[in-house]
Amino acid sequence: MNKHAGAVSELVDQLGRLPGVGRKSAERLAFHLLRVPEAEALALADAIRKVRKDVQYCSICFNLCESSRCAICSDDSRDATRLCVVEQPRDLMSLEQSQAFKGVYHVLLGRIAPLDGIGPDQLTIDSLIDRVRTGNFVEVIMATNPTVEGDGTSLYISNLLSEFPVQITRLARGITAGSVLEYANREMIADALTGRQKF
Amino acid sequence: MNKHAGAVSELVDQLGRLPGVGRKSAERLAFHLLRVPEAEALALADAIRKVRKDVQYCSICFNLCESSRCAICSDDSRDATRLCVVEQPRDLMSLEQSQAFKGVYHVLLGRIAPLDGIGPDQLTIDSLIDRVRTGNFVEVIMATNPTVEGDGTSLYISNLLSEFPVQITRLARGITAGSVLEYANREMIADALTGRQKF
Repeated sequence: MNKHAGAVSELVDQLGRLPGVGRKSAERLAFHLLRVPEAEALALADAIRKVRKDVQYCSICFNLCESSRCAICSDDSRDATRLCVVEQPRDLMSLEQSQAFKGVYHVLLGRIAPLDGIGPDQLTIDSLIDRVRTGNFVEVIMATNPTVEGDGTSLYISNLLSEFPVQITRLARGITAGSVLEYANREMIADALTGRQKF
Repeated sequence: MNKHAGAVSELVDQLGRLPGVGRKSAERLAFHLLRVPEAEALALADAIRKVRKDVQYCSICFNLCESSRCAICSDDSRDATRLCVVEQPRDLMSLEQSQAFKGVYHVLLGRIAPLDGIGPDQLTIDSLIDRVRTGNFVEVIMATNPTVEGDGTSLYISNLLSEFPVQITRLARGITAGSVLEYANREMIADALTGRQKF
C-alpha cells in the first residue's frame, strides 16, 4: 500500500532510477528535496534541464561541451600531435586532473561490449580513424579502462590504426603508488613484472 | 582546473548538495543524466518541480499530501480515537507499512533539538495540543525516534498533554525480532528487561 502522495511517489520512482540509489535512498532524497528551501530544490531541477539543453558533444573529440568545439580542442597550446583515446568524458576528466597529458583526446562514448549489444558501430571509432587519417598525429595513446571490454576495444582500434604511420601506445600497468605488495593481486604483480623498468 | 562544461559543473554542484552524495557520486550521477534518454532526465527534473508545486502539508496532521487533507485524515475507516505522534512524514510511512496501526497521526515536522536551534515553537506542537483538546482521543502514542532528542520531545509533549483525559503511551523497546542477544547492546537489553512481558 503506497501512502505517498502521487507527486512524492513519482519523485521517489525517478530518483530510484539513478545508479546506486535504492528505494530507501530515493525516499531519503525525496524528503530532503521536500524539506530544503524551494529555490534549492528547483535549482537541481533546472540544472538537469539545462545540462540536457545546453550540453552537447564536441564535434571533434566527442568530449562534453556547450558549443560545437570543446575547451581542449579549442586550446592552441595543447599538443595536437598526441591523441589519447578514452571511453567516456569522465575518463578524460580523470586524465586531465592528473595534469600529466598535454595532448588532445578522442572520446569513444563507450566500449565494445558484445554482451550488452554494443558493437564498434555504436562508438565514435569511424571519426577516430578519420582524425588519424587526416591529422598529423605521431602517437595514439589507448587509455580505455583496464577491463576485458576496455582491453578488447583498444585491441580492435589498434588493429584498425596499424595501417597509419603513427605510434600506438597504451597506459602503463603495474602496482599503484602508495599500495603494498602484500595486497596486490596476481594480475597487478604480473603487469608490474612484465612492464618492469630500468632504474 | 575544472574542465567540466559550465552546465555539467552546475549539475554536479547541485547533485553534490544532496545528502550522502559526495563529489565523486555527484559526477557519476551527472554523467548518468547526460547519458540516459533525454525524456528520462527531464522526468526527474519535472518530478522535483511537481513535488515542490503540488505537495503540501495536511492541514490536520501535517502529513504530506496533494490537497488540504491527507489520505489518512480523509479515511473514515481509520480509528479517530487513537493518535500517533511522529517526527517526520517518512516515520508515518514506516508505521503505515507495518499495517499495525489503524488510528490517525500527527506529524511534528521535526524534534526538539536545542543544539540545532530547534525549539518547540518550530514544530507542530500547538496544533497537536489543539487537536487533543478538541478531539475525542482516548490514546496518544508517542512514536518519536528512540534518540535523546526524540525521547526529549516525547517527554516535553507528554507533560503538555497530561492535563487532558487521554492515555499517553510510547512505542515498546527491547530486542528486535530476528536478532541475537549476543550482539544486542546494553541499552537494548536494559529496555527489554525493563519492559518484560508476561508469557
